[in-house]
Formats: sequence, C-alpha cells, structure tokens
Amino acid sequence: MSVRCETDSMGAIDVPADRYWGAQTQRSIINFPIGVARFRWQRPMIRALGVLKRAAAEANAELGELPPEIARLIVEAADEVIAGTLDAHFPLVVFQTGSGTQSNMNANEVIANRAIELAGGVLGSKTPVHPNDHVNRGQSSNDTFPTAMHIAVVEQAHACLLPAVERLRDTLARKAEDHADVVKTGRTHLQDATPITVGQEIGAWVAQIDFGLAAVRGALPGVLQLAIGGTAVGTGLNSHPEFGQRTATHIAALTRQSFLDAPNKFFALSAHDALVQVSAALRTLAGGLFKMANDVRWLASGPRCGIGEYEIPENEPGSSIMPGKVNPTQCEAMTMVCAQVFGNDATVAFAGSQGNFQLNVYKPVMVHNVLESIELLADACLAFDEHCARGIEPSLPRIAENLDKNLMLVTALNRHIGYDRAAAIAKKAHKEGSTLKAAALSLGYLTEDEYTRWIVPLQMTRPSI
Amino acid sequence: MSVRCETDSMGAIDVPADRYWGAQTQRSIINFPIGVARFRWQRPMIRALGVLKRAAAEANAELGELPPEIARLIVEAADEVIAGTLDAHFPLVVFQTGSGTQSNMNANEVIANRAIELAGGVLGSKTPVHPNDHVNRGQSSNDTFPTAMHIAVVEQAHACLLPAVERLRDTLARKAEDHADVVKTGRTHLQDATPITVGQEIGAWVAQIDFGLAAVRGALPGVLQLAIGGTAVGTGLNSHPEFGQRTATHIAALTRQSFLDAPNKFFALSAHDALVQVSAALRTLAGGLFKMANDVRWLASGPRCGIGEYEIPENEPGSSIMPGKVNPTQCEAMTMVCAQVFGNDATVAFAGSQGNFQLNVYKPVMVHNVLESIELLADACLAFDEHCARGIEPSLPRIAENLDKNLMLVTALNRHIGYDRAAAIAKKAHKEGSTLKAAALSLGYLTEDEYTRWIVPLQMTRPSI
Amino acid sequence: MSVRCETDSMGAIDVPADRYWGAQTQRSIINFPIGVARFRWQRPMIRALGVLKRAAAEANAELGELPPEIARLIVEAADEVIAGTLDAHFPLVVFQTGSGTQSNMNANEVIANRAIELAGGVLGSKTPVHPNDHVNRGQSSNDTFPTAMHIAVVEQAHACLLPAVERLRDTLARKAEDHADVVKTGRTHLQDATPITVGQEIGAWVAQIDFGLAAVRGALPGVLQLAIGGTAVGTGLNSHPEFGQRTATHIAALTRQSFLDAPNKFFALSAHDALVQVSAALRTLAGGLFKMANDVRWLASGPRCGIGEYEIPENEPGSSIMPGKVNPTQCEAMTMVCAQVFGNDATVAFAGSQGNFQLNVYKPVMVHNVLESIELLADACLAFDEHCARGIEPSLPRIAENLDKNLMLVTALNRHIGYDRAAAIAKKAHKEGSTLKAAALSLGYLTEDEYTRWIVPLQMTRPSI
Amino acid sequence: MSVRCETDSMGAIDVPADRYWGAQTQRSIINFPIGVARFRWQRPMIRALGVLKRAAAEANAELGELPPEIARLIVEAADEVIAGTLDAHFPLVVFQTGSGTQSNMNANEVIANRAIELAGGVLGSKTPVHPNDHVNRGQSSNDTFPTAMHIAVVEQAHACLLPAVERLRDTLARKAEDHADVVKTGRTHLQDATPITVGQEIGAWVAQIDFGLAAVRGALPGVLQLAIGGTAVGTGLNSHPEFGQRTATHIAALTRQSFLDAPNKFFALSAHDALVQVSAALRTLAGGLFKMANDVRWLASGPRCGIGEYEIPENEPGSSIMPGKVNPTQCEAMTMVCAQVFGNDATVAFAGSQGNFQLNVYKPVMVHNVLESIELLADACLAFDEHCARGIEPSLPRIAENLDKNLMLVTALNRHIGYDRAAAIAKKAHKEGSTLKAAALSLGYLTEDEYTRWIVPLQMTRPSI
Repeated sequence: MSVRCETDSMGAIDVPADRYWGAQTQRSIINFPIGVARFRWQRPMIRALGVLKRAAAEANAELGELPPEIARLIVEAADEVIAGTLDAHFPLVVFQTGSGTQSNMNANEVIANRAIELAGGVLGSKTPVHPNDHVNRGQSSNDTFPTAMHIAVVEQAHACLLPAVERLRDTLARKAEDHADVVKTGRTHLQDATPITVGQEIGAWVAQIDFGLAAVRGALPGVLQLAIGGTAVGTGLNSHPEFGQRTATHIAALTRQSFLDAPNKFFALSAHDALVQVSAALRTLAGGLFKMANDVRWLASGPRCGIGEYEIPENEPGSSIMPGKVNPTQCEAMTMVCAQVFGNDATVAFAGSQGNFQLNVYKPVMVHNVLESIELLADACLAFDEHCARGIEPSLPRIAENLDKNLMLVTALNRHIGYDRAAAIAKKAHKEGSTLKAAALSLGYLTEDEYTRWIVPLQMTRPSI
Repeated sequence: MSVRCETDSMGAIDVPADRYWGAQTQRSIINFPIGVARFRWQRPMIRALGVLKRAAAEANAELGELPPEIARLIVEAADEVIAGTLDAHFPLVVFQTGSGTQSNMNANEVIANRAIELAGGVLGSKTPVHPNDHVNRGQSSNDTFPTAMHIAVVEQAHACLLPAVERLRDTLARKAEDHADVVKTGRTHLQDATPITVGQEIGAWVAQIDFGLAAVRGALPGVLQLAIGGTAVGTGLNSHPEFGQRTATHIAALTRQSFLDAPNKFFALSAHDALVQVSAALRTLAGGLFKMANDVRWLASGPRCGIGEYEIPENEPGSSIMPGKVNPTQCEAMTMVCAQVFGNDATVAFAGSQGNFQLNVYKPVMVHNVLESIELLADACLAFDEHCARGIEPSLPRIAENLDKNLMLVTALNRHIGYDRAAAIAKKAHKEGSTLKAAALSLGYLTEDEYTRWIVPLQMTRPSI
Repeated sequence: MSVRCETDSMGAIDVPADRYWGAQTQRSIINFPIGVARFRWQRPMIRALGVLKRAAAEANAELGELPPEIARLIVEAADEVIAGTLDAHFPLVVFQTGSGTQSNMNANEVIANRAIELAGGVLGSKTPVHPNDHVNRGQSSNDTFPTAMHIAVVEQAHACLLPAVERLRDTLARKAEDHADVVKTGRTHLQDATPITVGQEIGAWVAQIDFGLAAVRGALPGVLQLAIGGTAVGTGLNSHPEFGQRTATHIAALTRQSFLDAPNKFFALSAHDALVQVSAALRTLAGGLFKMANDVRWLASGPRCGIGEYEIPENEPGSSIMPGKVNPTQCEAMTMVCAQVFGNDATVAFAGSQGNFQLNVYKPVMVHNVLESIELLADACLAFDEHCARGIEPSLPRIAENLDKNLMLVTALNRHIGYDRAAAIAKKAHKEGSTLKAAALSLGYLTEDEYTRWIVPLQMTRPSI
Repeated sequence: MSVRCETDSMGAIDVPADRYWGAQTQRSIINFPIGVARFRWQRPMIRALGVLKRAAAEANAELGELPPEIARLIVEAADEVIAGTLDAHFPLVVFQTGSGTQSNMNANEVIANRAIELAGGVLGSKTPVHPNDHVNRGQSSNDTFPTAMHIAVVEQAHACLLPAVERLRDTLARKAEDHADVVKTGRTHLQDATPITVGQEIGAWVAQIDFGLAAVRGALPGVLQLAIGGTAVGTGLNSHPEFGQRTATHIAALTRQSFLDAPNKFFALSAHDALVQVSAALRTLAGGLFKMANDVRWLASGPRCGIGEYEIPENEPGSSIMPGKVNPTQCEAMTMVCAQVFGNDATVAFAGSQGNFQLNVYKPVMVHNVLESIELLADACLAFDEHCARGIEPSLPRIAENLDKNLMLVTALNRHIGYDRAAAIAKKAHKEGSTLKAAALSLGYLTEDEYTRWIVPLQMTRPSI
C-alpha cells in the first residue's frame, strides 16, 4: 500500500496515500480496533461534521478570524463532506475517545487536506490550510462534536423518523375511519369486556402513536441548542465572542432547522440531557408501537384457534416445517426493534449520567444509540406500514360471532336492574353455557322486550344515557 | 377480633368490625399478601381516590345521576378520605389486580360504609349508599384508577418535588453567584484543562437542574388529562356523556390543578405513556443530580490526597474505624436515590409497554414507582440542600495552587504562536516538571512580557478576542 | 420527649431516652429524612447485623482481643438484635452514607448500650462496653456492612425465596403430570402449530422455573464469601489475622449456611458483583415466571372470545362495572412483581458499576433492592401457587374443539408427501374454510385411509418415526 | 441485473442470478429493509448455521433419513458456509421474523442450491437437493435457529471473549506483582483512607475480572444445551428420535465444544434464559471492567491537578484545542463499551421475558445483542491491554508525597490509644494543617518513639497484631 507521512504533536506516522485523513485519524485506527465491522460512523454524523465545519469557516470569515481564501477552500471541501463523496475518508468507530476528538480531527484533517489539494498544495503539509489552526479555528472537539451530534439527530428525526411514523399513523387512522362502525368485543385483562368499534380500537393506537410523536417533537427543541462557541470547557476561549451564535445561524441556514446558540455552554459540554430526553421519547414511541404491534398479532392470532378478529397480509411462508403457516412477521420485526430501542435508551441514560466536571466523555456512544434508534424505528415503521398495516382488515364473521356470545353485554343492564342482579345473570349464563338472554329471562329480572331494547351493542359503544 | 359480614357478587365474607372496608377489599387482603410491609398505598393515592370519588359524586348529582342526599353523603365521606382520617381503612398493596380494581373498590366500600354510617344505616347493608351503584356511579376501575394515578402524580410533583428541587437549585445558583470570580482549573477527561470560574462550574449544575425541572414540567400536561368518563373500555358506557368533563372540572377545582378530560379515552385506559414520560423526565432530572453530586464529592475529595478544591459540611463521623474521617455522605445518599430512580424508571417503561387491547394492567406498579421516585428525589434534594449544598465553599488556597501549576493555560497561546508550538511548550514543561513560563521562554517562542500579557487565567474564562 | 445525651467524635447530641441508639444514629436520623415511611431497614438486615456482631465478639474473645465478660455482654445484646426484640431501635433508612456506616454504628450503639444496661451501667457512658472499641472491634463498616448484606441475602434466599418458588414449581409439575396425555393445539408466533400435550406445555414452565432456581442457587456461592476481616480498605488493619476466618465460621454456625472468608478482601469491599449476579439470577427467574403467568392468562382468556383452553380460579369480582367478570388477577400481580424485579435489577447493576478505588458506596441501595426482589418474588409465588396454580385445569371441550380444527396437523404429512404438497393442502383448507381432510382428499395427495393413519395428534406429540 | 426464478409455497420470485439464495430469502430482503447497513448477520451466526446444517445432514445420513449422496452434497456445501466463502449469500438482517425462520431458510436455500450446483443440477430446481425436505430434514427454524444461536455464542465466547479478557487480566496481575510493595494512600468514599499497596489495588481489579470471567464461564453450560431435535414446538415431530442427540454430537465434534442435547426441548424453544444468563454475566464482567477503567483514569488524573498516582501511555494528542493534553482514551472507549453492554443486556432481558406458549419470537435480537457484547468486550479488552494496561506505572514520587501527608495513618493508633483519642489527633492535624505526628505529640497521647513504632505504613498493609 502506498503511504505518505503525516504529523501531529506526537510525531510522524504513515497514512494511506489515497486517503485525506492525517496523523490523528491514523492513530485512532490503530488504537481503537473495536467493533470495526459495525461501528463506523455513518452518513448522518459525517454529514453533520461537514455542515458544522462549513458553518464555522463561514462564521470565522465574517468575523475576520479566517482569511477569505482559506475559508473558501474549507467551505468547498466541507461541501464534499456534506455531499457524501468523502465518506470513505471517515474510517473511525464509535468506541474512541469519549469526546469524539478523533472524529473531529478526522473531519479537520480530511477537510484540510482536501482543501490543500484544491489549492494545489501538498497533502500533509498543513499549508495553506491547517487542520487545527484553520479548520478547527475557534473550536474544540468539546463543542464541535456535541454540535455535530445535535445536527445529526435533528436532521435524522426530521428526514427519517417523523415521516415514517406519520405514514404508519396515517394508514392506521384511515383503517380506523374505514371501520368506524364495526362493533366488536372489547377486552380488558385479556377477558371479554363491553363492546367497542374497530375504529375505536385502532383509533387508540393512533392516539398513542400521536402521543409518541408529540413526545419526540417535544424533545427536539433541546437538541436545537448547539454547544458551538464553548470550545474547551465552555468559556469560549480562543473563539470570537460572536462565533457560536454566527455558526449556529449558518448551521440553521444549511440544514433549514432552527438551530440556536445554547445559552449555557458549560452545561452543553458537560451533559447531554437533551439527547437523554430524545432517547426517552423514542422509548415512549417504541412503547406505543410495541403495544400496537402486539395487539395486531393477537387480534390476528389463529387462523382457527386464536382470536382471529383481524386479518393481516401473508408475506412469506411462515415455517420451514409447518406447511401453510403464516406468521405475523412484521409485528415480530417491529417488537424486536422496540426491544432494541429500549436497550439503546438504557445505554444513553446510563452514559448521560456519567459526566464529570466540564465534560461528559460518553458522547460517541450516546449519539450512536440515539441515531440507531431513530433509524430502526423509521425503517420498521415503513416496513410495517407497507407490509402489514395497509393490509389489516377486520374479519367480520369472526367479529360477529365473538360479539354475539360475549357475556359482558350484560353491563348495559346495570343502570336498569343494578350491578348485583346483572352479575347474577352473567354468572348464570357462564355457568350454564347459555346465552345472556336466556339467563336473564330465566332469572326473571327483565322481559324479552326490555332485553332487546337495553342490550344494543352499537349503542354501547356510543353512550348517551 | 370482632367481625361483621360483608357481601359481593362472590358471596359473603367476614371483615373486621372496626373497618369500613367491604368484601372485595377483604378478598384482596387474603389473596395478595405480597410485600405487605412496604407496598401499602400511601397518602397520595388514598387522597387522590378521595378527590376523585367526591368529584364524581358532585358531577353525578349535577347530571341527575345521583339523588342529592346520596351525593351529599358520599361527598362527606370522601372528604374524610381526602383529609387522611380514614387511611387505616386502606390496607391494600400495590401488587393486586393490574387495573387497581381492588383499590377502587376499597374506596367505594369505605366511602359507602362511612356514608351509610353518617346516614345512620347498617354497615355492609349497601343502603342507602351502594359502593357500586352509587359511589362508583358512571365509573369503572379502568377509568377511576388511572384518574387517581394522575391526580396523585400531579399533586405530588407540585407539592413535593418541584419545590424541593427548586430550593436546591436556588442554593446552588446563589453559590455560583457568590463565587462568580473565583478562577480555577477546568477539567475535561478528568485531566487539567483551561480555567473556568467557580460560578461557571456550579452554574452548569444549575443549568442542568433547570433542564431537568423543565423536563418534568414538560411531562406534566400529559398527566393532566384524565381517563374519567371512559368507564370499562373507553366508550363511557353507563356514564352520562358529560360525566367525564364535569368530573374533571370538579377535580381541577378540588386540587387547583388544571386537569382536563382526556380527548381519547381508549388511549387513556390502554396505555399510560404520560406516566412513562414523567418517569423519563424524573430519570433525566436524576441524571443531572447524579452528575452534580458526583462533581461535588470529587471536588471535595481529600482532604489531602484528592482534588480538595471544594469544602463541604462535616455532618457525622465518617468511619467506624478511621478516626476523624469525614465523608461526602449527602452525595452518597443522593446518588443512591438516583440509582433507585433509574431502576424505577426501567420498571415503569417495561410495564408501560405491556398493555393489551383496551387495558394496560400494570397500573399499580407504574404509579407506585413514579410516586416513589418523586418522593425520593424530593427528600434527597431537601436533605442535600440543607446538609450539603448550603455549606459548599471553595477552598481558595487549593484552587490557587492547582490553577497556578495547570499546564493547560498554554491554550491561550494558540492564537499567538499556533497550536503546534503551544503543544511543544506544554510537553516540555510536563516532561521536565517545570513551569509553563520557564518552558516557554526556554523554547524562545515568546518573551516574558508576552507571556504575562497573554496568559491571564481570569481573562481565559471571559473570552473576548 | 425524654432524652439523654450521647456523644461521638463530633460532640454531644440528644437522643430519645427510651432508645438504645447513640449519637451517630441520631445524626443519621436528622441528616437523612429520605423515604422514611418505606425505606427503613427491615428484619433481614437487622438480624444480619446482630448475627455479625455476635460472631465478631465470639471471634475476638477467642483471639484474646476482647475480655470474656465484654464479649459475653455483646453476645447477649446481639442475641436480642437477632431475635428481633430490638427492631424499634433501628430507625435508619437505606438512603444514608453509601458504606452503611451509620447502620453499622446503629448496631454498635444499640448493642453497646444494651450491653451496658445488662451490666448495670449508664446508657451513653460507653462503659464497660464501647461501641467502636468493643462492639466494632477489629471491624470497619466497610467490611461489616457488606458482610451483613451477604448474610441477609443468603438467609432470605434460603428461608423465603427458594421454598416459595419450589412450592409453585411442584404444583405446576403435578399439574403437568396430571394432564400428561391431554393433547392440544401448540402455538408458535401466536399462530396455531402442531400439537403438544398439556403436560408438555406446563412442563416447559417447570423447566424454565427450574432453570431460574438453578441460576439463583448458582449465584449464591459468591454471596457466601464474606468481607469480614478486611476492615477499612481490605488490608485487615486493626483486626487479628485470624479474625475474618473465625468470624465467618461463627456466622456459618449461627446461620447454618456455609459462609466463608472471602479470599480477596479488597475486591469484597470495592465491588459487589456477587450481589449483581444474584440480582441478575432473580431477573432471570422473574423472566420465567413472567412468561408462565402470561401463558396462563392467555390460555385462560375468554371466557368466550379468547383462547379459553385453561380454567383458573375465580378469586374475586373482576370489575367494578362489568358484572360477573373474572380476571386473571394473580397473573397480574405476578407480572407486576416481575416488572418491579426488572427495575430493581437495573438499580443494582447500575450501582454495582459505580465503585471507586477501595470502596463501592452504593451498598445500602444494592442490598435493599436484592432483598426486595427476593421478598416480592417469594410472596408472589406463594400467592400465585395458592390462589391460581393449584386451581388450573384444562378446559377439555375447548381444547378438543381447537385441536380438531387446527390446520397444522398437516405437518405430519411432510414425511409422506413432502413439504410443498402438504402446504398446498393447508392453504386450500384455510382458503375454503374446509377441514384438512376434505382439502387433502380433494387434492388427491393421499387416501382417506392414509389420512387417518398419518394424522394422529397424540402420536404427533410423541414422535417415533 | 441478471436474475433467475425461484419458488416457494407462496409462488415464484426473481432472485439475483449470481446468488445461491432462494425465494424465501428474497422475500425477506424485500419485506425487512430494516437497519440494513449495520444489522446483517455476520460471521459467527453464518458459520453456526453451516455447522448445524452439516451436523444435521450427517446425523440424518446415519439414521437413514437422508440418502448418503444427498448428505454428502449438503456436507460439502455446508463446509463452504462454515469456511466463510459464501458469506455474500447471507444478506438478511436481524429484524426479520422472530424465530429466525428466514435465516434458517437462507441457509437451507444457499446450501441446497450450492449442493445442486456441485451435483451439476439447475439452481432453483430443488433437485437433487431440496431446501426443506433435505437440508432442513427433521428440523424446524424453531429448533435450528436457537441451536445456531448457542453455537455462535459458545464459539465466540471461547474464541474471542475469554482469551481477550484473560490477556488483560494477566497483564494486570503482572502489574500487581511488579508493584506488590509500593505503599500508597487507600481511598474510600473518595476520601483518604488507610494505606494499601499498588499490588493490592490492582489485585482487586484482577479479582473482580476473575469474578466476571467465572460468571461468564458459569453461564456457558446452559448455552451448551441445544434445542435441535425439538422441531416445531418441542415434540420433535418429523425428526428421528435420535436426531437431536446425534446432531448435537456432530456439532460438538465440529466445534470441539461439549454441546449436548437439551433435556427439555419445549423450554429450549419457548425461552432463552441461557442467553439471558450469559448476557447478565457479560454485564457483570462489564461492570468490573468499568470500575477498573474508572479507577485507572482517576488514578492517572492530572497531570498536575488530579490524583496523579499512576501514569498511563500517551497514545494520541488529546485535544484539538488544548496543546499537549493527553487523555485516558482507552478508559473512555472501555467504559463506553461497558455502557453499550449494559444496554444490550437490557434488550436481551426484556426480549427474553416476552415468549408466548411454545415459542419466544425475539430470537434474532437476543443473539445479536449477546454477540455484539461479546465482540465489543473482547475488542475493548485487547485494545485496553495493548494501549493502556501494559503501560500503567505507579508514579512513585506522587504516591510517596500523598502517603506522607495522609491523615488516616492515624488509624493504626486505635489499638493503642482508642478510637476517640485517635480521632482527636486527626481532627487537630486537619484543622491546623499540621502533620499527624505534630498533632499527636502536641496532644500528648503518645511519645515520638511510640509514633514511630506504631505508624508504619507498610505494616498497615500487612496487619499482624
């Protein structure tokens, strides 16, 4: 392999000649061969670092902190990072230094070398663009990396998560509307309960998903606040006093998200509670999706020995041994994703509690888990929407059969004959395996006509006493 | 023990003659002897059930669903439940039926019997006040218990948690202000970093606690929405159409909290994501308190072989073997409370994901853990405030000594001589154990005068380039 | 309230005259009013401290470290602590200093004062028995408290947890045997699958509980190793070199459990991984009980619109609004207990990771959660056993009805006609709502005689090809 | 892209012509585009499926269930799967059907087509080797997938985890030995405590890692039990009665691990508590590594304003802004890995609790997380060993300086002058900033000669009273 020599404050080291990264990136590759196959930074964080570095160069140029030409070169190189054409030059993994310094330097080095190349200079020469003095101008990993974390999370939430969840939500809302009048057995404690409509049942899922979406949206404002401008410990040492605010403004323009300067930079470096809150909201959303997916598979259980009130699409053979078996596989993928999100959240909250003094050094593992949860929930919602939710249909004959024999229709009698007598009817019917009506008439608590007037399942779902 | 006979739909059973509870409460005592010494419901939930039952009676009376005299008796008995004089009549524990039905019936039975007594009737006669037909009028455990959960959580958050956390926060804010100009060594990665002030360091804790407080406050609106009016499955069967809204209004009046009718009752019964969100916010708050308490004990570590930059009160002998030892015990109690809150939250989130169809049957364990977290955090904040935070003082000699020898003051030189030369100075000083100044001058990168002008710790905490 | 004056190294303080505790206990009451209503130490830890203090006095006497008369007095007072008659003199809570120093001193103070009283001395005089120099002789909170933790956990596991779980396990094993030949529909993915017997279904629960029991038993040896003898940091300073081993021997004799001297005292003070492992095993056991309880309630779901293959006891009215409803309440209490155990375990593992240097200062919260999980699981198993498991009966008509229509009986044909043709039969029957046999014959893949010979549900549960 | 047509029981579908997979794999690709970039199965599971399929073919051949030639072809193709040359033919991800059916079919399809190719047949023809009837002979995903899970976990634990952890453990053990006699300040509650040696301090880490290793080893026997032979629901339907045992024997031979036939196949399919226990043991191990890495970074904190008693290697520039800063980055990577392991374990335990009836459908997510934890811990231990542990050295001057001023040396006086007087000395010295000796002599509690004889730090670490 062809190499070139790069240097940093620890000395010289060889790097692959066809890569833009420099000495510090190379040291990280050597020192942190941890989970290499699965834990390299992906698009969202690389793009976010590009956005940040471009915005910082623009701000520094405006403030006279960088010569215009240097800034222009940095912007041009950063644009390539943003676009994704330099992804192969970001080889580092999550498990590195806990401030993300090495990934910040990876961005600095790649942008500097690419800018040098654009200027016709020599890679590794740090001239005319220096990774620290120019690309990292007025910055520290301690403020750039959490800034990139926030950019990545907000962008992914908007680009990826919210539309996917909303798509599923809308499909379910349509299903609820389509079957607003189908009356069926309600169930509490897994036991037969008073009737509801399919629309009400599915509508509860929609309401729960809406709650989860609101929780995620409600957590994002915290993430819109950016650490940039705090530099090493929060004081902003070595940065222009307006640098943080101006960089945030450029980031907002580049991403079309309303990013802001964090009001307390010390907090922004030493804790990542905004990410903890996002993670918790993702967990809440996952809890709702979990419940929905569980309901779907139970309601579709059978085909003959389960509840069988809903039908779901058959997407693949269900069993390698049982011919003709069809399983609720989208529900299974969804609930496994939710289990993963629960675990990811545990990691984030644990890591979030472990800051010391002016820095929390669990930054990479925190953002990694939040981004993974976002991606998995988004992917799972799209798959579930397309391959399951759209195909959910009530099984009308089964629903009717179950409703008809449901003893809890007796509840409608409470108001007419009192709880104790109504209970006696239900118990008698249950014990004898008879219909409610037969039991009611045999006990003499009401007439057949009253029974017919008082027990009307559809009315029981739309009470108006 | 003197007993009387009470009955329910399963038959007759003896209860202690001096207790107001009835048959269903008694059955629960017998069937659920689980954690009896520690898991009985406490004041907040008992009071909340009283508030709910009074509000429901008032609403039913207004709507013509209860005779005024019956309602009056219920209100009078419920007022005693609210006041706490009947707490001994609430013997049930958390681990019972997952809908809280038995505690709802406990309230119904106690209020009915006490109302009967007030009316001069016979305990257990269900005349003139019936526990189901009157006290539980238009209600189901499935909507009353989550309503009581919400009342208890909101009341405890306001009465207990927020003031306690704010008191601690305000103490810390005063400390930050008092020591706004004390310059000290910053620390990142546990390593010496550029200077900050004591005010900035403590101010970051204040900002983090403020974030946690905002998270808790932001989660409460979800809890202000009440399930009441949903009855058994969410349809509101057997309740007057206006019952939910009117009861919520009465609850709001009784508690002076802006409780509302939940817009989707099906969701309000089948999921408790509002509590999951509160629990998550409590976890976020706990994470912030954990970090603060950790910082305090590290900064106060020593007295001679630690960091020793802060002094904290000596409240008790620290060791049964090491004479004169003083330990950061309030920090330890606080961090143990936070560890408990983390675990409680795991329980809440797990339980919250396990709903099926029209009901989540983990209601009691969910509210129990949220209330416990609230109580513990409140108690710990008050104790920490009084016995630690108020007594925190910077140890000025130690702070000055540490600041003076801190090599990271070199960072101020970056802008003047560049990162690489500044690094060389710091490395030389570290290697030789010399001062920064000596190393800088010996390397010839700047003059003594420049050193004195460029390295000014206080200026480094208030950058203005 | 009548008081007397007690002193410690911080000075004098009043304590209630009718309590044996001294100055340090009193300071802890004042400094840690955290969760007072629910977090006072209970029997197991108080007894364990008594056992330890008696054993230590006996060991010290043997080694000439305590005068025989002093030791005798300590033993006599400690016996009262063991017996429980002094429980009212242990007022402290979990959330105190993280080494448990204050509870160790509480034991030292109570035993010293009670011993003084037995000797006719003056309470608070520390003569003739001194809480530190005599009762705590050769000890430090850092080794006594974790020793007491281990004693309490081992004793509770043996006295309380294992018998309770075994009782439930044995009940289920009998049920499995009783119904070994009842053939029923198996279910995978919640969908109908090939047949099994009730004995096999329940037997899987027994096997899982056995696994959980083995996990708990497998974790106990770690807890049998005692920290005693390590004193302040693990070196054993101020204790006789044989003190740890001899005290462990006395503890073993007093408890009839095979306690041992921990081989590495430094580890025994600075980490509590043995408790983390016990907690994890309790979680595994809880996971198994959770699955069992879930299966029970699903199999008993209905009565008419669920699976309904098992019947469980009706213990109480299920609903305050739906007359005659019966719910699987024991399953609900059990699964809520399991959710609590999951959260408790999260607390234990988190706390277990937070040791520093020579001490982990989360001792109280760790042992509290382990003991709570033990108690709750034990209580829940006993309640579940008595009020649910013993009454579980297969509903033979429903089982037969479900088995008869189960399409997955087709799997028996794989070996005779191949997977693809068998699949075609199942799909045809499902689509047409016909019986398997009708579909099979209509497709011409086998004769009626072959069908009868090849599809024999009972044989399918006992394969012998 | 060139395609060929493949079929399954749902019909025909195009697959890439250059891939061996068939219709069911293709459907899974389409239906589960979830986390595709990071959640494809990696070497361990693919290899395990290959091992299983080869072993199954061998067992079936022995039992006359497969013609020798068919078995030979399967073995040859499976060997390629084992060797890794067919990894590109395993495109599926973790989030699929919860039984892993699609990955089992992926293995069946690839092996069948490759075997067909070896036999000169037509890909997709299922002749002469059928994916279900031959490769999956006597098997179901429900027993093959958990069997492969166990193979992968045991192999990775032995090949990857244990050697890596042991290497680190041995390095630390050598360090403990090397510095067995260096006396230093002990620390409890982060406060100065009685002395210990560096050997004792590091030895505690070794003991804790040993405990974690023993926990992992103790959990593996459960994973050695294989589900194979249970087929669809545990009854073993469609498999030869000796198939499970014989296949397990072949697997043991192929892997040189003592795999066994699980005694209860119903349990082996419906629960994965053996994996939950492994995951918990990994968490315990992670807890120990976390504590060790935390201790290392605190002891190495500084360089000038921290504890500074240990020196660790400088591997890379620590800061992009602070020149010359060196951070404990290996400690940070290790503790982030531990945080990830904690979250992974939460996922595993949650998923493990969610089985229903005869199947737990969280198999893929469970094994994925266990394997990830194994890999990350192994990688982190190797990196930490090489780049940190080997270079840890005590900083003797700093250690001596700290020891010398440590007030807790006073503890050695307890036995001579009593706790109360010793406390007075320490308090006086602390208050006055004087040495212990000066305070002791000034109080007149002992002579200079006694002081010199009684306070001997090295002796305090090796007590022999």
